[in-house]
Amino acid sequence: MEDVTAFRMVDVPDAEVDAVEARYGPLAGAVRDLVDATIRSRVGDDEVAVVLAAVREATARLRADQADGPAGVNYNATGRAWNWGNAVAGVRNAIAPPLSIEHGPDGRTSATLHLGAAYEGPPGCVHGGVGALLLDHLMGVTASQMKKVTLTGTLTLRYRDPLPLGEVRLTGEVVGEEGRKVFVEARIEGRLGVAIEAEGTFVVPRWSGDFEQTR
Amino acid sequence: MEDVTAFRMVDVPDAEVDAVEARYGPLAGAVRDLVDATIRSRVGDDEVAVVLAAVREATARLRADQADGPAGVNYNATGRAWNWGNAVAGVRNAIAPPLSIEHGPDGRTSATLHLGAAYEGPPGCVHGGVGALLLDHLMGVTASQMKKVTLTGTLTLRYRDPLPLGEVRLTGEVVGEEGRKVFVEARIEGRLGVAIEAEGTFVVPRWSGDFEQTR
Repeated sequence: MEDVTAFRMVDVPDAEVDAVEARYGPLAGAVRDLVDATIRSRVGDDEVAVVLAAVREATARLRADQADGPAGVNYNATGRAWNWGNAVAGVRNAIAPPLSIEHGPDGRTSATLHLGAAYEGPPGCVHGGVGALLLDHLMGVTASQMKKVTLTGTLTLRYRDPLPLGEVRLTGEVVGEEGRKVFVEARIEGRLGVAIEAEGTFVVPRWSGDFEQTR
Repeated sequence: MEDVTAFRMVDVPDAEVDAVEARYGPLAGAVRDLVDATIRSRVGDDEVAVVLAAVREATARLRADQADGPAGVNYNATGRAWNWGNAVAGVRNAIAPPLSIEHGPDGRTSATLHLGAAYEGPPGCVHGGVGALLLDHLMGVTASQMKKVTLTGTLTLRYRDPLPLGEVRLTGEVVGEEGRKVFVEARIEGRLGVAIEAEGTFVVPRWSGDFEQTR
């Protein structure tokens, strides 16, 4: 198979990674806010025309010098890794809520976040697929325990109740391991209680060892 | 249970819905482009500061008059429905790719779309959870056949191969019905072939009949 999942080792010191994140992280936050306003605004044609022109000009300024492709996943000699474009956790990605995961001493994971107007599915509720997106990510991180690379094998989601927009909480844990497979359970809850329960099998790819050795 | 999923019948003529979509749809497209540029840009501190100020000003202009909460799902007396904030299909949502679904004469559904840098998970590939998000949405629409309301019951995803960023295609079909349950199968494929296969059970909520009667 074509090599489409190349993690890149790059010669970039931690200080430069920090500087880029300090430069673009707040911008991603501001764009996230603009996404919300674009959904909820009621201003008229003239105002929207002004905003549209400003957004296009801002984009052109950013594109004056840009990477050819996606951000990828990079790491450096100190073991620092960054995935700025990640759809769930990317520091520079305004689509990402972003999810920040806490690791308990027992390998349990959790994350609390606020989901606003941009994550809607049923009226006033989080899109069922957004729940799946967040759970898949948390469960992958839970499987990897930040020590190894894992990819999603199978994922089963049971939708129990609606998940209202607002504050939501995810929790996950490893429930078993078998060869290159790691079994994970997780759930997402909101102010009405547990909305989605998930079980997943995550797989450590064969090339993971090579990556760990070079990292 | 608290009524969190209220579809709203509103007195807004089709022409006004069209006008709002013509006003904000292009803006959402421009913001989508800005999201991509925020991930990929390499311009320095001064340029980013200019862009950050412009984005914040644009957002303030939009927020000068805005809805209190999320967009919701509305419909009018002609049967026209709109869900501008939907995370997958919302016309005014820059997070949404957006997905546009084609309906075949036999009830099969399909969608082709381009997923760029903002949908990344593994390097160069679509985030596994984004695949789940898109499949959940397509499968819900497949179950409903645009005739009834359905909510996700269970969803099982098998991840077969990586899904490279770029053009992807989803297809789905109803494979059975039983009382208020509709069984759907779907898949998503990219240039390396089928990446994820999915099976789902979708449920027609008890209140669906009331909605259909008023619609």
